Amino acid sequence: MATLPGKLITELTSAFPSDRFLTDPVDCYSYAYDNSRKIYPPDAVVFPVTAEEVQHVVALCNCYRIPLIPRGRGTGTAGGSLPEIGGIALSMERMLNILSMDAANRVIVAEPGVLNQAVQDVAKLDGFFWPPDPSSAAFSTIGGNIATGAGGPHAVKYGTTRDHVLGLKAVTGKGDFITTGCYTTKGVVGYDLTRLLIGSEGTLAIITEATLKLTALPDKVAGITAHFRDLSSCTAAIVRIMALPQLPSALEFLDNGSLHLIRHRYPDMLPSDTHAMLMIEVESSGKDISDAISVILAACQNDGLIRASQTENTAMLWKARKALSPLLKEIAPKKINEDVVVPVSTLPQFLKGLSQLSAQYRLHNVNFGHAGNGNIHVNLLINPADADEVARAERCLDEIFDLVIQLRGTLSGEHGIGSEKRAFITKEIDQATLRLMRDIKYLFDPRNILNPGKLFPEI
Amino acid sequence: MATLPGKLITELTSAFPSDRFLTDPVDCYSYAYDNSRKIYPPDAVVFPVTAEEVQHVVALCNCYRIPLIPRGRGTGTAGGSLPEIGGIALSMERMLNILSMDAANRVIVAEPGVLNQAVQDVAKLDGFFWPPDPSSAAFSTIGGNIATGAGGPHAVKYGTTRDHVLGLKAVTGKGDFITTGCYTTKGVVGYDLTRLLIGSEGTLAIITEATLKLTALPDKVAGITAHFRDLSSCTAAIVRIMALPQLPSALEFLDNGSLHLIRHRYPDMLPSDTHAMLMIEVESSGKDISDAISVILAACQNDGLIRASQTENTAMLWKARKALSPLLKEIAPKKINEDVVVPVSTLPQFLKGLSQLSAQYRLHNVNFGHAGNGNIHVNLLINPADADEVARAERCLDEIFDLVIQLRGTLSGEHGIGSEKRAFITKEIDQATLRLMRDIKYLFDPRNILNPGKLFPEI
Repeated sequence: MATLPGKLITELTSAFPSDRFLTDPVDCYSYAYDNSRKIYPPDAVVFPVTAEEVQHVVALCNCYRIPLIPRGRGTGTAGGSLPEIGGIALSMERMLNILSMDAANRVIVAEPGVLNQAVQDVAKLDGFFWPPDPSSAAFSTIGGNIATGAGGPHAVKYGTTRDHVLGLKAVTGKGDFITTGCYTTKGVVGYDLTRLLIGSEGTLAIITEATLKLTALPDKVAGITAHFRDLSSCTAAIVRIMALPQLPSALEFLDNGSLHLIRHRYPDMLPSDTHAMLMIEVESSGKDISDAISVILAACQNDGLIRASQTENTAMLWKARKALSPLLKEIAPKKINEDVVVPVSTLPQFLKGLSQLSAQYRLHNVNFGHAGNGNIHVNLLINPADADEVARAERCLDEIFDLVIQLRGTLSGEHGIGSEKRAFITKEIDQATLRLMRDIKYLFDPRNILNPGKLFPEI
Repeated sequence: MATLPGKLITELTSAFPSDRFLTDPVDCYSYAYDNSRKIYPPDAVVFPVTAEEVQHVVALCNCYRIPLIPRGRGTGTAGGSLPEIGGIALSMERMLNILSMDAANRVIVAEPGVLNQAVQDVAKLDGFFWPPDPSSAAFSTIGGNIATGAGGPHAVKYGTTRDHVLGLKAVTGKGDFITTGCYTTKGVVGYDLTRLLIGSEGTLAIITEATLKLTALPDKVAGITAHFRDLSSCTAAIVRIMALPQLPSALEFLDNGSLHLIRHRYPDMLPSDTHAMLMIEVESSGKDISDAISVILAACQNDGLIRASQTENTAMLWKARKALSPLLKEIAPKKINEDVVVPVSTLPQFLKGLSQLSAQYRLHNVNFGHAGNGNIHVNLLINPADADEVARAERCLDEIFDLVIQLRGTLSGEHGIGSEKRAFITKEIDQATLRLMRDIKYLFDPRNILNPGKLFPEI
């Protein structure tokens, strides 16, 4: 555990007013955790409001070699913002300015602490939105979205954060100001450092400004729900829908375990014989949304379909889906929540494999997620007090990851590696490539002060 | 100029059959130039057919510290594949296999020498295409498209190469095999080395395999031409079109100089009073293409419009546009061809500034290009034998770049830096960011053998 040198504390005290430099352990405790539910209190919390202040803190931490853990609003699930070895939590939550909204060029420039929702609200006034839509959008920051490469249900049509950022300003671990990318929708001058920073989980540089590319809101949105008697007919429908020329704007899957949880809370919401379900959204820019709906309804037709129909209100469509995460937390003291991705055509095989593995290891397993991208949230519900169950879950998880890799998938679609998945990263990334990534890390941050220990497996 | 050590020649002779290792200066001369029209013969040309052969050549060049210049089909315009200081040209043109076409997952895996057009042909059989569409698509390679971050007219709707590559295999300048990205449409494991390599112009690693993301072909495509009496009414229409919610799939601009060239060759093609013109393409997945057309026709309406109308045949739409580059080469012994980008809303100001600068420096200036992205091909037509004109062109170009940067634009939208623009890169990229890029270069390629001297300004 790092303890802060007295001289560093003196320098920070003189540089920041008392409400923007906290050292009282009670205050610091609020910055000890994220949605991974682990707890590591920082030794101090600093709240910069300008890029120069960010640079000053980085330079000081670099000088004294103190860990600096950047943080948005702590909604990440992979433990990326945990101060595992102490140090200073750099909370970006007060860099809250939207610096410009340029409707003619479809660009918004924002500081990292601006909430995703705040960007949506401003963009909407001009008929635009910013496509990255993590389920935390109302509370998570642009900086955090960029650091993790966030995605959400609409990634199936729009892609993820890396597809919607034009440029960044940032401070490297060395304390250098850098400017990446450009303000225009095209640009190939120099290496693409923008996307190198996107998804780098605060290990390379602290983002101080982001230039975001906006997209026009669709004219029409329609929702479809499809209920299936069994898993295999549901996954067959997913594969057929994703083979259609036009992509849905969302294609969410809920397995029997998920439906069971929802039924428990909302007894009348679902037919009793539904054992797997799809929630589908389609968008259109014109008159043809009825065509898109018919084509998708047709793709859902198979022996296991109970019914597929257009929903009246797309807001309602998301009610059951959004209820899931909180419900999971209520019923299980602990869940291991993964966000693996497999090629869509292998989803039937993957979900069948998951059933077999959870049966084999006698674990309660609930799966749902962004089926259109093959991105499934795999939840193993365990009681941490049951050592045998914990051990079985670890072995099961290891086999799940092996299955994912064998199917040409990836260990994380949107949550990132953080601290939660670093033990597994070598299953996916070979040693030479990983070495190169680590060398890049040391180029940006030679004294390893920025979020040390995250993203890479322990050496 | 590098000359090859005898031992290196012996090793390459034993590793490659005689038709895949050329040292005769007459043979090498074919690999001395690209579309920048400069000529620097390599000392040898090697044609690998496997990743292992690529790795072997890299390892040898690294050992003997000999420049290795990767090359697709030499269609680049920025001089990126010129062997400026000699060395070995690594022609990827015989790595021609499409390794898999996976329609269910919308993925094609190809070797770097596969032509863009060959990918389109295979993808089309399943109703897909690969969106990057440089005008060289029929002759340029996937590897070259990736190395330069190629784009084309359809980038306004679909983005450029970086938006359509899921993963890469490559050999670094150190001789390490690396694997970047993934096979799925989502993935955030580790740093985004895929996009670091895209647009790196062969300076970091040699691409040996690319996993490309395919897109469904549109159901319907329609073309519109709009003729304007003057430049300012045309640019006003561009700004209005790009403020519409739905993006056109192409929005190409031709100025008076461009039209003059076309008229010279095709006297009956254009109305005599057209002084600026737009070629617009719209796509639709359903019934609503007539709506899209009406909305765009309405956005073209202003005092300077002569006529705007739907064209019968979209193939015809591109005839005049595609004739332009060859026509320019016919009338001027030399053209300085830039591909700058400015924010779309500043196009009126930029094109007006261009007119003023070319008048001030007494230069013949012809402009056309991808107006929807603000990406304008600025051509200064000069006689290289006229030393005064050459000097004026250099000063004019310098001021054009200053104007671009002042308007928050970028020096290159799709051609890259190569050797042609490296003197100007510091106008756009600050020293700290450039230093970081150079450090990354040395991390991948410590002995500076891969395309040495490209992309960076001379030290």
